[in-house]
Amino acid sequence: MAPPRSPLAPAAFPKLPEVPGVRLAARACGVRYPDRPDVALIAFDPGTAVAGVFTRSLTASAPVEWSRSALERSAGQGRAILVNAGNANAFTGLRGEAAVARCVAATAAALSCAQEEVTVASTGVIGEPLPDERITAHLDALADALAADGWEAAAQAIMTTDTFPKGAGATARIDGATVTLAGIAKGSGMIQPDMATMLAFAATDAAIAPEALQGVLREATERTFNCITVDGDTSTSDTLILAATGKAGHDLVTSPDDPRLDDFRRALHQVLRDLAQQVVRDGEGATKFITIAVSGAADAAAARRIGLCIANSPLVKTAIAGEDANWGRIVMAVGKAGERADRDRLSIRIGGVAVAHHGEVVPDYDEAPVAAHMKGHEIEIEVDVGIAEGQATVWTCDLTHGYIDINADYRS
Amino acid sequence: MAPPRSPLAPAAFPKLPEVPGVRLAARACGVRYPDRPDVALIAFDPGTAVAGVFTRSLTASAPVEWSRSALERSAGQGRAILVNAGNANAFTGLRGEAAVARCVAATAAALSCAQEEVTVASTGVIGEPLPDERITAHLDALADALAADGWEAAAQAIMTTDTFPKGAGATARIDGATVTLAGIAKGSGMIQPDMATMLAFAATDAAIAPEALQGVLREATERTFNCITVDGDTSTSDTLILAATGKAGHDLVTSPDDPRLDDFRRALHQVLRDLAQQVVRDGEGATKFITIAVSGAADAAAARRIGLCIANSPLVKTAIAGEDANWGRIVMAVGKAGERADRDRLSIRIGGVAVAHHGEVVPDYDEAPVAAHMKGHEIEIEVDVGIAEGQATVWTCDLTHGYIDINADYRS
Repeated sequence: MAPPRSPLAPAAFPKLPEVPGVRLAARACGVRYPDRPDVALIAFDPGTAVAGVFTRSLTASAPVEWSRSALERSAGQGRAILVNAGNANAFTGLRGEAAVARCVAATAAALSCAQEEVTVASTGVIGEPLPDERITAHLDALADALAADGWEAAAQAIMTTDTFPKGAGATARIDGATVTLAGIAKGSGMIQPDMATMLAFAATDAAIAPEALQGVLREATERTFNCITVDGDTSTSDTLILAATGKAGHDLVTSPDDPRLDDFRRALHQVLRDLAQQVVRDGEGATKFITIAVSGAADAAAARRIGLCIANSPLVKTAIAGEDANWGRIVMAVGKAGERADRDRLSIRIGGVAVAHHGEVVPDYDEAPVAAHMKGHEIEIEVDVGIAEGQATVWTCDLTHGYIDINADYRS
Repeated sequence: MAPPRSPLAPAAFPKLPEVPGVRLAARACGVRYPDRPDVALIAFDPGTAVAGVFTRSLTASAPVEWSRSALERSAGQGRAILVNAGNANAFTGLRGEAAVARCVAATAAALSCAQEEVTVASTGVIGEPLPDERITAHLDALADALAADGWEAAAQAIMTTDTFPKGAGATARIDGATVTLAGIAKGSGMIQPDMATMLAFAATDAAIAPEALQGVLREATERTFNCITVDGDTSTSDTLILAATGKAGHDLVTSPDDPRLDDFRRALHQVLRDLAQQVVRDGEGATKFITIAVSGAADAAAARRIGLCIANSPLVKTAIAGEDANWGRIVMAVGKAGERADRDRLSIRIGGVAVAHHGEVVPDYDEAPVAAHMKGHEIEIEVDVGIAEGQATVWTCDLTHGYIDINADYRS
């Protein structure tokens, strides 16, 4: 029944550090899938700061709207995240809002916290009412099962078409103290986050005030989750939440620009990039993990848009699936991106080999090493558009028969 | 060798009217394909006005850059269009410009006209030098073969991955005179024109001055070729040229706003829409022709962007390939379009049946008639986004294994 594990998957789920102040539990509630865990509860000790970024979709789901508003009303204080797979509770009208309200009330009761300290996330089919009674019936059991080592179980419970659970961890130094950082994500199709991924949750024991936490999260998201795409489709449910429990024992950091955050920023970027890349590695039908580094653009935002335009081109993606170093399609994608580029100064490298330079194929271009590179699972494309100094790197996967198989049948 | 004819193709090439002042010829020049006509020459009598719209790509091909400039320098006077298939002469640097110059010079010599009265178009592989000597060697023979009934042969000569030649014709009344209008197009992949299609050429015997001709052409393009997409990829070579020979015997029309053009405008719109829809019907791997009518948007441009966003969503396109009325993915695509929409007033009809209304699935939704509609070749989707009065209709096709087959192997 379960699809085979992606050929691009990491060997195993990583050993994640326990994060003081964070406990997790997962449980099979039968929301949609029989006989597998499909609900995760992540609980934080009192005093935890929470930051979040959400989909820019104008048809955002009821859980997204609740969570966005709860973070504002609680001024960034959080005690719990309740997540279910199998039903996105999106495009469900007033019934969807009522289902969220009941889930939030049950979670707040089980954990003895305020309702606005609870955020929720749902992923799965769009447009069907969420059977929230199946979730609320299990909340006391979930609360009883909370444990500090529950990251992998939670990562498994939030999967939909994912073929492997996704986690990443790191440590960093803040003000002389060692802080830990762990996170999980899910996502495989409908992936071009534009604010966050489908679903990702990370926590640290660092002591960072909500506004500073939101600042570093938004900055790291811009260069990680917002730089991946599987199919150019943006979910109604994208949610990324970062919690900071403050248990690490250093003095509270209140500004995102505080230099004491430098090493934490590096570690957060590493964890989010790792999670984001795992989402791409589990892209529906993917057989190639593709890194596209764009340089020479007007600015970093322009470079990212050019990179995403290449990454989303069905012609580029199918050429790579066919192991064809079809750089003409890369030229085409640069041209349609709508960003400044100089056709006659454009250069392209594939697998480190110069293919095109100054707007023409390189003299005596030898396709053999490039063709060999295309046969691997990790494809590297570098594009210099010859205008200025803007750079960005984006990650995507190829477009294969597997994507068609999955999506011509799956009712998402 | 040749791919099977698209299941969405019209029964036969239409009977096109001869257009006084227009003659065409086609010939096998061996540019890339052996043993098939691959070059077309379209010649116009002296005094013909020519208008053109071209790709907005920033990596536009050498032929596009020449033609855009020639139309300016000749003030809209044209005597010939030279078109080849098999090589796009794109991203070929100075060599590409020199190849264009030689083709133009040979055409001007064969037809005894000025070089700026010659426009050129090339379609096929990107980045390989155009073997222009194979074309110029045949120009005298092409000129000798020119004939008024050459439309179908020319339509065949400009095909690449097309599975059928595309033509359309109409008549209109201007100022008491009957004018004829005929056109051809090619295109199958790398189709989201954003100014014109891959290649389309139309001619009329109406007497319309260049500026007026450009005005009506641009307006008609906006609602025809600019409303189609196969894969969201914009070609480096998109070119649409309309010629008016002035042989119909009415007084010259000099303003695009002249009410004498009303009926011609209708006929031009009909011909260009027909050609544009034929390009979609020949979309790579297509099995469904999809019409998406968007209403209730902020304005017509917003409606078109929402429509194209739905039409380009790989998840929507694969669902339709799977004959799945997955309206949740339509909601998702509306949400990511970035245009104003009211989630709670959004309505969707498929095959004329209300599926979702006011942001929720309709009560007692019966999927049976919608499922039956999805099994046909012609899919109708209507979306009302509930904001204002803006409307647009776009056309696309489904995303199938056939698209992957074609593009994982074809070096375009």
